[in-house]
Amino acid sequence: MAGHKALRINGTRLNETLQSTCTQWGALSSSTGMRRLTLSQADKDVRDWLVKECKKLGCEVKVDQMGNIFATRPGKGEGLKPIAMGSHLDTQPAGGRYDGILGVQSALEVLRTLHENDVATQHPIMLIDWTNEEGARFPGAMMCSGVWSTKSSTPLEACYRVTDSDGIDMRTALDEIGYLGTTPCDYRENGLEAYFELHIEQGPKLEQEGKSVGIVTAVQGMKWFAVRVTGVEGHSGMSSSSSASPGITRWQSSSREPGTTPMPTRSDALITAALLISAVRTTALETSLGVATVGVITSDTQSQAMIPSGIDFIIDVRCPTDAQLAALCAAIFTAFDAIVASESNHTAYSVTRSWGLPESVFHPSCIAAVRAAAVAEVGELQCMEMKSGAGHDAAWTSKVVPSSMIFVPSKDGVSHNPAEYTSPEHCTLGAQVLLQAVLAYDGRTT
Amino acid sequence: MAGHKALRINGTRLNETLQSTCTQWGALSSSTGMRRLTLSQADKDVRDWLVKECKKLGCEVKVDQMGNIFATRPGKGEGLKPIAMGSHLDTQPAGGRYDGILGVQSALEVLRTLHENDVATQHPIMLIDWTNEEGARFPGAMMCSGVWSTKSSTPLEACYRVTDSDGIDMRTALDEIGYLGTTPCDYRENGLEAYFELHIEQGPKLEQEGKSVGIVTAVQGMKWFAVRVTGVEGHSGMSSSSSASPGITRWQSSSREPGTTPMPTRSDALITAALLISAVRTTALETSLGVATVGVITSDTQSQAMIPSGIDFIIDVRCPTDAQLAALCAAIFTAFDAIVASESNHTAYSVTRSWGLPESVFHPSCIAAVRAAAVAEVGELQCMEMKSGAGHDAAWTSKVVPSSMIFVPSKDGVSHNPAEYTSPEHCTLGAQVLLQAVLAYDGRTT
Repeated sequence: MAGHKALRINGTRLNETLQSTCTQWGALSSSTGMRRLTLSQADKDVRDWLVKECKKLGCEVKVDQMGNIFATRPGKGEGLKPIAMGSHLDTQPAGGRYDGILGVQSALEVLRTLHENDVATQHPIMLIDWTNEEGARFPGAMMCSGVWSTKSSTPLEACYRVTDSDGIDMRTALDEIGYLGTTPCDYRENGLEAYFELHIEQGPKLEQEGKSVGIVTAVQGMKWFAVRVTGVEGHSGMSSSSSASPGITRWQSSSREPGTTPMPTRSDALITAALLISAVRTTALETSLGVATVGVITSDTQSQAMIPSGIDFIIDVRCPTDAQLAALCAAIFTAFDAIVASESNHTAYSVTRSWGLPESVFHPSCIAAVRAAAVAEVGELQCMEMKSGAGHDAAWTSKVVPSSMIFVPSKDGVSHNPAEYTSPEHCTLGAQVLLQAVLAYDGRTT
Repeated sequence: MAGHKALRINGTRLNETLQSTCTQWGALSSSTGMRRLTLSQADKDVRDWLVKECKKLGCEVKVDQMGNIFATRPGKGEGLKPIAMGSHLDTQPAGGRYDGILGVQSALEVLRTLHENDVATQHPIMLIDWTNEEGARFPGAMMCSGVWSTKSSTPLEACYRVTDSDGIDMRTALDEIGYLGTTPCDYRENGLEAYFELHIEQGPKLEQEGKSVGIVTAVQGMKWFAVRVTGVEGHSGMSSSSSASPGITRWQSSSREPGTTPMPTRSDALITAALLISAVRTTALETSLGVATVGVITSDTQSQAMIPSGIDFIIDVRCPTDAQLAALCAAIFTAFDAIVASESNHTAYSVTRSWGLPESVFHPSCIAAVRAAAVAEVGELQCMEMKSGAGHDAAWTSKVVPSSMIFVPSKDGVSHNPAEYTSPEHCTLGAQVLLQAVLAYDGRTT
């Protein structure tokens, strides 16, 4: 162990590699942001590059049935499982250069550092690039670490059938870019000793508290619900229902002209959706159980002259514990039921799809390894324990192998946006802590 | 006049022509609905057919600068302006076979009837097909009758620059299908004696009241506003603002974890939009001034893991009078200002575009001609005076020439939808009333 204490990653190389690969594969033209949707050409290109770089370092590379990439640097111990470092290379449609990418690039930098210093570890040391962490092209975030952990509610065959907005299914997309591998996507057949993930915080806490490193102890539970509200279509100048009773014949203009009375008889899906979306926030605020967000909304009609008959939206709910999550979700749908019942406008809602990630508590040994590495590097005052409000692949790995995470600061807390930024110094620091955490864990278990 | 009383249009020919041309040009494959967007290939094809049919009847055909088609059957009077019948052949993206189409096809059937019966009218009798009534491909409904009337707030050159969702401008689209004509699009240079428009009701009143013919006396005023709500983007697991004050350094997990407190500090554009959309309805209901609808809504983000930073929606407001319209619009924006001020979530709204059609009152002589024709055909008990809740080309023509409209029933009041339906009997009846109204007006003015 003593000999490793002085080992240092090459921060210049890390930052240059991160920036140049982003510039080459998936950069937005209008900003420093990224559009590297999973299994796209840009994702294939950066994967091909990654595999080549790992092979240069003498790593064995495997691709599993969901396209997850595993690059292993052998250890000297007999029959020991790998200690893995990983994250994801895919991004949101207009995301940044750090979310996920920093974790994979730092893992590569750790491998490069071990290689050029000829460090012999007890365990094999592994780099992992998880497929479709973002869920931006194929709905279902952290999809492929979820399949690997076998704890996700969506099994492999169901994931293969998930389609993007062009109707391309995931299996076809994997095959087309040459990453439909044969290694079983199952931790029981392709297992790990431990898993460490460096990630940007994607929130403002480290910056607000003036800290450099987050020692992540848990990931809060989260659920998504795809909701559809249905009403009755109609022309916006008219009533959309025929509840008015037939009147008396007359020549004179009726006082109940089209346009003056129909509002009360409408069955307007967007009005109901607006009330439900407002209730999502009100319920989260009033219960103080967690956060709930509606980010995506679409209307069946694209004409301003129509009363909308169908609205789809997605609710994202996150709470520190599964019990709080269940309570907040229940409170939201209780509020929905009350609104739909009281509106009596003949609209209805249904939940057409849901997805969830249970609360994850990281492993004490992994947390201890990260803490030791972080404190050794920057001292206690620059470190902070925290829970993650965002989901990560480590949440799934933690269900089946000892796992934990390292956070570095996000400027202004911004993520999933081209303005996402983490300084080169913080990127370097994160990679250095990752290296030392892995070595500490390797030393601990030998 | 006496000799014309017995003149009858050929209902079988009318309905067969209407159905067969819809089937050929713009029919949806999955229903009896139509997708004949203005200036599309389907629109070009039906226009070419219409021009050919009118020329077969000896009509002179002119195309104006906005692609409006004018087919004139000469009259025997010296220097008299034409009495016109018209409507539009374009449809919504998923519309029906009657909205607009019935009016043009019935005008053709009237010309055919006059031709085969060798009827000599005093005035020339004209068929008009107005370009882009729907405003579905190029925003701005009733666009080209508006230019012709010179009363629209959008002049010809501005209309030429309006683009569709593919970025094609209207002038290019007119040119590409060969309908960028040279006749001035201006009633002062290409004028009319009077204008009659047969249209489906697009509402449920005739059906509810058990009537066959609507004698339309006015079109209510309407305004559209494109509204943009802006907030601050952020990850849905996190706060999107940094209003929390720096806390005290500690090793233990803070009670103010990401995910438990950020709701109040968010600047969520969709929450504000939901409150505004709900206020649109509430204001319309409480004031009883008219109807107000939000049919189109889009979010900048397509990720459920994002707090939305920008929402666009369109408000459609309609009232019987311009004064009521102004009052309702003012009340809506007063409500908006109050919501944005009270929310203090740092969201804002702006009106990025607006469009309006002033209240239109039809001409007593034209209304009298329609009434005489309708009562002669079906008797008083089957007729009903009404105002139109939807905008029509006749609303613009009425600003500059005597105009009025004839309505026939819409099944269940449904329009702008493939389920739109008017029975063959009602189509025939409408065309017959149109014929007799035109002949009555021709007789009246000689």
